[in-house]
Amino acid sequence: MKINRIQAKDYTIVLGKNSLSLLSKELRKICPKANKIALIIDKKIPKKFLLQIKKNLKNYSLFIFYVSSSEKIKNLNQVSIMLNKLLKLNFNRSDVVIGIGGGIIGDMSGFLSSIYKRGINFINIPSTLLAQVDSCIGGKTGVNSSFGKNLIGSFYNPKLVISETNLLRSLPRRELVCGYAEILKHSIIKDKKLFSFLKKNTRKIFSLNSEMLSKSIKKSCEIKLSFTERDFKEKGARMILNFGHTFAHALETKNKYSKKLNHGEAVLIGMMIATKLSKNQKICSKGTLDQIEMIYNNNSLLKNLTKFMRKNEILNSIKFMKNDKKKDDDKISFIFLKRIGKTTMPGKFKYNLRQVENMVKNLY
Amino acid sequence: MKINRIQAKDYTIVLGKNSLSLLSKELRKICPKANKIALIIDKKIPKKFLLQIKKNLKNYSLFIFYVSSSEKIKNLNQVSIMLNKLLKLNFNRSDVVIGIGGGIIGDMSGFLSSIYKRGINFINIPSTLLAQVDSCIGGKTGVNSSFGKNLIGSFYNPKLVISETNLLRSLPRRELVCGYAEILKHSIIKDKKLFSFLKKNTRKIFSLNSEMLSKSIKKSCEIKLSFTERDFKEKGARMILNFGHTFAHALETKNKYSKKLNHGEAVLIGMMIATKLSKNQKICSKGTLDQIEMIYNNNSLLKNLTKFMRKNEILNSIKFMKNDKKKDDDKISFIFLKRIGKTTMPGKFKYNLRQVENMVKNLY
Repeated sequence: MKINRIQAKDYTIVLGKNSLSLLSKELRKICPKANKIALIIDKKIPKKFLLQIKKNLKNYSLFIFYVSSSEKIKNLNQVSIMLNKLLKLNFNRSDVVIGIGGGIIGDMSGFLSSIYKRGINFINIPSTLLAQVDSCIGGKTGVNSSFGKNLIGSFYNPKLVISETNLLRSLPRRELVCGYAEILKHSIIKDKKLFSFLKKNTRKIFSLNSEMLSKSIKKSCEIKLSFTERDFKEKGARMILNFGHTFAHALETKNKYSKKLNHGEAVLIGMMIATKLSKNQKICSKGTLDQIEMIYNNNSLLKNLTKFMRKNEILNSIKFMKNDKKKDDDKISFIFLKRIGKTTMPGKFKYNLRQVENMVKNLY
Repeated sequence: MKINRIQAKDYTIVLGKNSLSLLSKELRKICPKANKIALIIDKKIPKKFLLQIKKNLKNYSLFIFYVSSSEKIKNLNQVSIMLNKLLKLNFNRSDVVIGIGGGIIGDMSGFLSSIYKRGINFINIPSTLLAQVDSCIGGKTGVNSSFGKNLIGSFYNPKLVISETNLLRSLPRRELVCGYAEILKHSIIKDKKLFSFLKKNTRKIFSLNSEMLSKSIKKSCEIKLSFTERDFKEKGARMILNFGHTFAHALETKNKYSKKLNHGEAVLIGMMIATKLSKNQKICSKGTLDQIEMIYNNNSLLKNLTKFMRKNEILNSIKFMKNDKKKDDDKISFIFLKRIGKTTMPGKFKYNLRQVENMVKNLY
């Protein structure tokens, strides 16, 4: 199977089965002056990938840092510890930091790279479907604070992304659903054809069919890039990507990022609520809602999540919307769905918390 | 006297006597959605300026943070404390952070702004000559680590710079010399006319003649912008601004940033050594060296600094060059002077520490 390449404005995404084998070749091309490499790797990544990488990087001074991928360690303190380790090892800007893991590792090592000597080369090797289709694109880096998720961070692009689909083989189904949620979102907000493709092939994606996986990852990356490249610093169009996320973030915060509700699951719930609200506000038709409900039902996407969909759960989460980074006044900006592939424009619909509450009450 | 404006690519610099009075007008224009303002202010700024600013900002929710401007508190821990304060106050990206003080306050509040929710509006009001002519331009932000100065940071531009020359009235002469060193550097590396102007008017600058001050600040900003705007991330041309700084940083590090040697003084020493090396390497003429020595002597620029110019002092500082951010291999890149207004190109001359040592030995 062929390895796909996507050329973003400042970097390359290499993706597909066995794309990891290209690491050293690509590295020589984009960071010709690199001597030292810091590999920040999720402890859970199977040993064989580490061995493959080590072999690939045998011409460099390689320093390996094992981290456990938990939202709890994704904070400024951990970043500070890592910064000091790199300083002690005398890393220069022309050296390289590679992050291998899910979004937590990517966000944290990207952020670390952005502030180390004002920016060291960063390579992202996302190992989860969510990271491959979403968080590896768009340059958002960051860590959590006690006040909320990703509140400290920067916009910083990697020099290279390698999305090796072999890394997904060991993922539990819940993790796959998590990434799938963002693929589905990308289709809903921008690409009717991808939505039709998903209607047919979701089952094959969940069974890790390489071709279907690669195709949906590639399409997803392209859609996300189309938003982020024209609006890197998230001032306008990019906020469309936030479809379903206002409720998702609120639910995650309310549940204190419990393992019972992962990000993708929260997004699935958030998108369903956003679509139902769109229908109630007469912004989309019942037919559009039906199509989305059908893809949810056919693939049991909300299995085990019904308790998070309950009226009181949603109502009680609304107050956690207040710390949203994108909020620029007392009101909360909503993205609604017009039809499959088309949303309302960012900034058009804004509500205060009371108004959100009333809209939600009308859903039940 | 008229207030000058310089339009940089992403922001405006307003400068001159009474330019501070334009704060609220400019603020409304560039941050129309701002509600909250965090004023990070050096404790030493005279009260009357704070009162003027408070009056100017009476339509905003103003939070004032007094900080002591010391390299020791310019660290990630302080930034973390400030981040949490702003998070607690629920600042949004569309709100504003204003830093008022010297380079320490500017670097730290700029860095804080760059990582707060991935970037909040930042306004810089530099209060020292050094900050007005140098550190407020070019978007370098950062804090120190135990391994060296400014090793953690980002590239992040302010939305507005206000260089109020009235703020300079309370500066001790040593602080003025410090800023003057960078003005002189800008003339040496790029602008023969400015160098001639300085030959005539340095005394008037030190006596705080408003017109001469404004003119030299404006010219200095324009020269620095001409380098930083075409090379924001410091990959090439911008390194010319580093003239004299390789030795300066090494001396400062060796002396542990002692109050006996401030940054500008170290730069004056560094430029003198760089010029002497240029002459020894036959890159500039004796005449060029003479001209520079004359401006130093006529204005007693190295008064009280002779002990830092001694052979052993310089030789012993060389080993501290190793942590330089711009170094991309084992060698250290030097900028030499060809003639007043013209340097060698970055990357053309590179030496290992032993070679630097030998060159320096030949000076004495």
